[in-house]
Amino acid sequence: MTLATDLLQAAKSKNVMIVTAESCTGGMVAAALTDIAGSSLVVDRGFVTYSNAAKIDMLGIRPETLDAFGAVSEPIAKEMALGALRASQAGLAISVTGIAGPGGSEHKPEGRVCFACASDATLHVETVEFGALGRDRVRAAARDHALKMLLSALR
Amino acid sequence: MTLATDLLQAAKSKNVMIVTAESCTGGMVAAALTDIAGSSLVVDRGFVTYSNAAKIDMLGIRPETLDAFGAVSEPIAKEMALGALRASQAGLAISVTGIAGPGGSEHKPEGRVCFACASDATLHVETVEFGALGRDRVRAAARDHALKMLLSALR
Repeated sequence: MTLATDLLQAAKSKNVMIVTAESCTGGMVAAALTDIAGSSLVVDRGFVTYSNAAKIDMLGIRPETLDAFGAVSEPIAKEMALGALRASQAGLAISVTGIAGPGGSEHKPEGRVCFACASDATLHVETVEFGALGRDRVRAAARDHALKMLLSALR
Repeated sequence: MTLATDLLQAAKSKNVMIVTAESCTGGMVAAALTDIAGSSLVVDRGFVTYSNAAKIDMLGIRPETLDAFGAVSEPIAKEMALGALRASQAGLAISVTGIAGPGGSEHKPEGRVCFACASDATLHVETVEFGALGRDRVRAAARDHALKMLLSALR
Protein backbone atom coordinates (compact mmCIF):
# COMPACT_ATOMS: atom_id res chain seq x y z
CA MET A 1 0.00 0.00 0.00
CA THR A 2 1.65 3.19 -1.21
CA LEU A 3 -0.07 5.42 1.34
CA ALA A 4 1.29 3.44 4.29
CA THR A 5 4.74 3.31 2.70
CA ASP A 6 4.80 7.10 2.23
CA LEU A 7 3.61 7.55 5.79
CA LEU A 8 6.26 5.27 7.28
CA GLN A 9 8.90 7.09 5.29
CA ALA A 10 7.69 10.50 6.48
CA ALA A 11 7.52 9.36 10.11
CA LYS A 12 11.00 7.84 9.94
CA SER A 13 12.51 10.95 8.40
CA LYS A 14 10.97 13.10 11.16
CA ASN A 15 11.75 10.52 13.83
CA VAL A 16 8.13 10.43 15.00
CA MET A 17 6.48 7.36 16.51
CA ILE A 18 2.80 6.77 15.71
CA VAL A 19 0.14 5.25 17.99
CA THR A 20 -3.33 4.12 16.91
CA ALA A 21 -6.65 4.10 18.77
CA GLU A 22 -9.27 2.29 16.73
CA SER A 23 -12.90 1.48 17.17
CA CYS A 24 -14.76 0.79 13.90
CA THR A 25 -11.59 -0.07 11.96
CA GLY A 26 -10.76 -2.65 14.63
CA GLY A 27 -6.99 -2.81 14.01
CA MET A 28 -6.92 -2.08 10.27
CA VAL A 29 -4.89 1.11 10.65
CA ALA A 30 -2.29 -0.62 12.84
CA ALA A 31 -2.26 -3.55 10.40
CA ALA A 32 -1.65 -1.22 7.44
CA LEU A 33 1.23 0.50 9.22
CA THR A 34 2.87 -2.75 10.26
CA ASP A 35 2.44 -4.15 6.75
CA ILE A 36 5.60 -2.31 5.81
CA ALA A 37 9.00 -3.80 6.62
CA GLY A 38 10.85 -1.62 9.11
CA SER A 39 7.64 -0.37 10.71
CA SER A 40 8.98 -1.16 14.17
CA LEU A 41 10.95 2.10 13.95
CA VAL A 42 7.67 4.01 13.80
CA VAL A 43 5.01 1.86 15.52
CA ASP A 44 5.34 0.36 18.96
CA ARG A 45 1.72 -0.21 19.93
CA GLY A 46 -1.92 0.18 19.03
CA PHE A 47 -5.20 0.12 20.91
CA VAL A 48 -8.25 -1.65 19.53
CA THR A 49 -11.02 -0.22 21.70
CA TYR A 50 -14.16 -1.67 20.23
CA SER A 51 -16.45 -1.36 23.25
CA ASN A 52 -17.13 1.61 25.48
CA ALA A 53 -15.52 -0.27 28.39
CA ALA A 54 -12.35 -0.72 26.33
CA LYS A 55 -12.27 3.00 25.51
CA ILE A 56 -12.55 3.83 29.21
CA ASP A 57 -10.06 1.19 30.44
CA MET A 58 -7.39 1.52 27.77
CA LEU A 59 -7.57 5.19 26.80
CA GLY A 60 -9.10 6.91 29.81
CA ILE A 61 -12.18 8.13 27.93
CA ARG A 62 -14.58 9.84 30.34
CA PRO A 63 -17.93 8.10 30.80
CA GLU A 64 -19.58 11.55 30.94
CA THR A 65 -18.33 12.29 27.42
CA LEU A 66 -19.72 8.96 26.22
CA ASP A 67 -23.06 9.69 27.87
CA ALA A 68 -23.26 13.19 26.47
CA PHE A 69 -22.10 12.61 22.89
CA GLY A 70 -22.02 8.85 22.23
CA ALA A 71 -19.05 6.79 21.12
CA VAL A 72 -19.21 8.07 17.54
CA SER A 73 -18.53 11.74 18.14
CA GLU A 74 -15.74 14.27 17.79
CA PRO A 75 -15.32 14.68 21.57
CA ILE A 76 -14.72 10.92 21.90
CA ALA A 77 -12.37 10.85 18.91
CA LYS A 78 -10.42 13.66 20.59
CA GLU A 79 -10.26 11.86 23.95
CA MET A 80 -9.19 8.63 22.22
CA ALA A 81 -6.26 10.29 20.44
CA LEU A 82 -5.15 12.19 23.54
CA GLY A 83 -5.52 9.01 25.63
CA ALA A 84 -3.37 7.07 23.17
CA LEU A 85 -0.66 9.73 23.36
CA ARG A 86 -0.72 9.53 27.17
CA ALA A 87 -0.61 5.71 27.15
CA SER A 88 2.42 5.50 24.86
CA GLN A 89 5.72 7.17 24.08
CA ALA A 90 4.49 8.12 20.62
CA GLY A 91 4.55 11.68 19.31
CA LEU A 92 1.56 11.36 16.98
CA ALA A 93 -1.77 9.61 17.57
CA ILE A 94 -4.67 8.82 15.29
CA SER A 95 -8.13 7.77 16.46
CA VAL A 96 -11.05 6.35 14.49
CA THR A 97 -14.61 5.86 15.77
CA GLY A 98 -17.56 5.38 13.47
CA ILE A 99 -20.61 3.50 12.27
CA ALA A 100 -19.35 0.84 9.88
CA GLY A 101 -22.78 -0.69 9.51
CA PRO A 102 -24.72 -2.37 8.15
CA GLY A 103 -27.29 0.17 9.25
CA GLY A 104 -26.89 3.14 11.56
CA SER A 105 -26.90 3.19 15.33
CA GLU A 106 -27.01 5.72 18.18
CA HIS A 107 -29.36 7.67 15.86
CA LYS A 108 -26.35 8.20 13.63
CA PRO A 109 -26.11 7.17 9.99
CA GLU A 110 -24.07 4.29 8.59
CA GLY A 111 -20.81 5.62 7.21
CA ARG A 112 -20.26 8.43 9.71
CA VAL A 113 -16.72 8.26 11.06
CA CYS A 114 -14.98 10.66 13.45
CA PHE A 115 -11.20 11.00 13.51
CA ALA A 116 -8.69 12.84 15.62
CA CYS A 117 -5.01 13.28 14.95
CA ALA A 118 -3.05 14.63 17.90
CA SER A 119 0.49 15.50 18.82
CA ASP A 120 1.73 17.37 21.88
CA ALA A 121 1.30 20.62 19.97
CA THR A 122 -1.54 20.00 17.51
CA LEU A 123 -5.03 18.54 17.37
CA HIS A 124 -7.11 17.98 14.27
CA VAL A 125 -10.62 16.56 14.65
CA GLU A 126 -12.76 15.66 11.67
CA THR A 127 -16.02 13.91 10.79
CA VAL A 128 -16.50 12.26 7.42
CA GLU A 129 -19.82 10.93 6.11
CA PHE A 130 -18.69 8.06 3.89
CA GLY A 131 -22.31 7.09 3.32
CA ALA A 132 -23.95 3.67 3.25
CA LEU A 133 -21.20 2.00 1.22
CA GLY A 134 -21.41 -1.24 3.17
CA ARG A 135 -19.28 -2.33 6.09
CA ASP A 136 -16.15 -3.35 4.17
CA ARG A 137 -15.95 -0.20 2.10
CA VAL A 138 -16.67 2.12 5.03
CA ARG A 139 -13.92 0.44 7.06
CA ALA A 140 -11.40 0.57 4.20
CA ALA A 141 -12.24 4.21 3.49
CA ALA A 142 -11.87 5.05 7.19
CA ARG A 143 -8.49 3.28 7.33
CA ASP A 144 -7.22 5.20 4.31
CA HIS A 145 -8.53 8.50 5.65
CA ALA A 146 -6.71 7.88 8.94
CA LEU A 147 -3.46 7.21 7.08
CA LYS A 148 -3.94 10.41 5.06
CA MET A 149 -4.51 12.47 8.21
CA LEU A 150 -1.30 11.09 9.71
CA LEU A 151 0.59 11.89 6.51
CA SER A 152 -0.78 15.45 6.46
CA ALA A 153 0.21 15.94 10.07
CA LEU A 154 3.77 14.90 9.25
CA ARG A 155 4.12 17.19 6.22
CA MET B 1 -13.84 -14.29 5.32
CA THR B 2 -15.55 -17.59 6.12
CA LEU B 3 -13.13 -18.52 8.88
CA ALA B 4 -13.85 -15.34 10.84
CA THR B 5 -17.58 -15.75 10.25
CA ASP B 6 -17.52 -19.32 11.58
CA LEU B 7 -15.50 -18.18 14.55
CA LEU B 8 -17.85 -15.32 15.41
CA GLN B 9 -20.78 -17.69 15.17
CA ALA B 10 -19.11 -20.24 17.47
CA ALA B 11 -18.16 -17.59 20.02
CA LYS B 12 -21.66 -16.11 20.00
CA SER B 13 -23.29 -19.47 20.46
CA LYS B 14 -21.03 -20.22 23.45
CA ASN B 15 -21.31 -16.66 24.75
CA VAL B 16 -17.52 -16.27 24.84
CA MET B 17 -15.74 -12.94 24.35
CA ILE B 18 -12.40 -12.99 22.52
CA VAL B 19 -9.37 -10.76 23.14
CA THR B 20 -6.32 -10.45 20.88
CA ALA B 21 -2.67 -9.77 21.67
CA GLU B 22 -0.73 -9.26 18.46
CA SER B 23 2.86 -8.56 17.62
CA CYS B 24 3.84 -9.54 14.06
CA THR B 25 0.26 -9.48 12.74
CA GLY B 26 -0.06 -5.91 14.06
CA GLY B 27 -3.87 -5.84 14.35
CA MET B 28 -4.79 -8.19 11.49
CA VAL B 29 -6.49 -10.73 13.77
CA ALA B 30 -8.59 -8.04 15.45
CA ALA B 31 -9.37 -6.54 12.05
CA ALA B 32 -10.52 -9.93 10.71
CA LEU B 33 -12.78 -10.48 13.71
CA THR B 34 -14.33 -7.01 13.51
CA ASP B 35 -14.83 -7.40 9.76
CA ILE B 36 -18.01 -9.28 10.56
CA ALA B 37 -21.21 -7.40 11.39
CA GLY B 38 -22.26 -8.10 14.95
CA SER B 39 -18.69 -8.66 16.13
CA SER B 40 -19.22 -6.30 19.05
CA LEU B 41 -20.99 -9.18 20.82
CA VAL B 42 -17.74 -11.13 20.77
CA VAL B 43 -14.87 -8.59 20.64
CA ASP B 44 -14.46 -5.67 22.98
CA ARG B 45 -10.75 -4.94 22.70
CA GLY B 46 -7.40 -5.90 21.23
CA PHE B 47 -3.79 -5.19 22.03
CA VAL B 48 -1.27 -4.43 19.33
CA THR B 49 2.02 -4.86 21.16
CA TYR B 50 4.62 -4.43 18.49
CA SER B 51 7.60 -3.47 20.67
CA ASN B 52 8.94 -5.13 23.78
CA ALA B 53 7.98 -2.04 25.80
CA ALA B 54 4.38 -2.39 24.59
CA LYS B 55 4.32 -6.06 25.59
CA ILE B 56 5.53 -5.14 29.08
CA ASP B 57 3.25 -2.08 29.53
CA MET B 58 0.05 -3.43 28.03
CA LEU B 59 0.20 -7.15 28.83
CA GLY B 60 2.53 -7.39 31.83
CA ILE B 61 5.12 -9.52 30.04
CA ARG B 62 8.11 -10.06 32.31
CA PRO B 63 11.38 -8.50 31.12
CA GLU B 64 13.20 -11.60 32.41
CA THR B 65 11.20 -13.78 30.03
CA LEU B 66 12.06 -11.46 27.15
CA ASP B 67 15.74 -11.55 28.10
CA ALA B 68 15.80 -15.32 28.45
CA PHE B 69 13.79 -16.36 25.40
CA GLY B 70 13.35 -13.32 23.13
CA ALA B 71 10.07 -11.83 21.95
CA VAL B 72 9.44 -14.61 19.43
CA SER B 73 9.15 -17.55 21.79
CA GLU B 74 6.51 -19.79 23.30
CA PRO B 75 7.03 -18.40 26.82
CA ILE B 76 6.32 -14.88 25.53
CA ALA B 77 3.31 -16.05 23.50
CA LYS B 78 1.98 -17.66 26.68
CA GLU B 79 2.52 -14.52 28.78
CA MET B 80 0.89 -12.38 26.08
CA ALA B 81 -2.27 -14.51 26.02
CA LEU B 82 -2.51 -14.70 29.80
CA GLY B 83 -1.83 -10.95 30.06
CA ALA B 84 -4.62 -10.21 27.57
CA LEU B 85 -7.05 -12.34 29.60
CA ARG B 86 -6.09 -10.41 32.75
CA ALA B 87 -6.43 -7.04 31.03
CA SER B 88 -9.93 -7.71 29.71
CA GLN B 89 -13.21 -9.36 30.57
CA ALA B 90 -12.79 -11.86 27.75
CA GLY B 91 -12.95 -15.60 28.25
CA LEU B 92 -10.63 -16.56 25.40
CA ALA B 93 -7.36 -14.95 24.32
CA ILE B 94 -5.13 -15.45 21.31
CA SER B 95 -1.57 -14.17 21.01
CA VAL B 96 0.72 -14.00 17.99
CA THR B 97 4.44 -13.20 18.00
CA GLY B 98 6.72 -13.98 15.10
CA ILE B 99 9.28 -13.03 12.50
CA ALA B 100 7.33 -11.68 9.54
CA GLY B 101 10.48 -10.71 7.68
CA PRO B 102 11.95 -9.95 5.30
CA GLY B 103 14.85 -11.86 6.79
CA GLY B 104 15.18 -13.42 10.22
CA SER B 105 16.09 -11.72 13.47
CA GLU B 106 17.01 -12.66 17.04
CA HIS B 107 18.87 -15.60 15.38
CA LYS B 108 15.45 -16.92 14.44
CA PRO B 109 14.27 -17.65 10.90
CA GLU B 110 11.80 -15.62 8.87
CA GLY B 111 8.39 -17.23 9.06
CA ARG B 112 8.62 -18.54 12.62
CA VAL B 113 5.49 -17.59 14.55
CA CYS B 114 4.53 -18.52 18.11
CA PHE B 115 0.91 -18.59 19.22
CA ALA B 116 -0.92 -19.10 22.48
CA CYS B 117 -4.63 -19.59 22.98
CA ALA B 118 -5.75 -19.32 26.58
CA SER B 119 -8.91 -19.47 28.62
CA ASP B 120 -9.27 -19.65 32.38
CA ALA B 121 -9.11 -23.43 32.12
CA THR B 122 -6.98 -24.18 29.06
CA LEU B 123 -3.72 -23.13 27.44
CA HIS B 124 -2.49 -24.19 24.04
CA VAL B 125 0.94 -22.95 22.87
CA GLU B 126 2.24 -23.65 19.41
CA THR B 127 5.09 -22.67 17.07
CA VAL B 128 4.65 -22.77 13.32
CA GLU B 129 7.47 -22.38 10.80
CA PHE B 130 5.67 -20.81 7.86
CA GLY B 131 9.00 -20.39 6.05
CA ALA B 132 10.35 -17.49 4.03
CA LEU B 133 7.12 -16.79 2.18
CA GLY B 134 7.59 -13.03 2.32
CA ARG B 135 6.20 -10.60 4.84
CA ASP B 136 2.63 -10.37 3.48
CA ARG B 137 2.11 -14.12 3.19
CA VAL B 138 3.65 -14.88 6.59
CA ARG B 139 1.38 -12.31 8.22
CA ALA B 140 -1.74 -13.57 6.42
CA ALA B 141 -0.88 -17.18 7.28
CA ALA B 142 -0.32 -16.21 10.93
CA ARG B 143 -3.65 -14.38 11.05
CA ASP B 144 -5.49 -17.39 9.64
CA HIS B 145 -3.72 -19.77 11.98
CA ALA B 146 -4.72 -17.62 14.95
CA LEU B 147 -8.36 -17.69 13.83
CA LYS B 148 -8.20 -21.49 13.44
CA MET B 149 -6.77 -21.90 16.94
CA LEU B 150 -9.61 -19.81 18.36
CA LEU B 151 -12.15 -21.86 16.43
CA SER B 152 -10.62 -25.13 17.68
CA ALA B 153 -10.70 -23.85 21.25
CA LEU B 154 -14.40 -23.11 20.91
CA ARG B 155 -15.31 -26.51 19.44
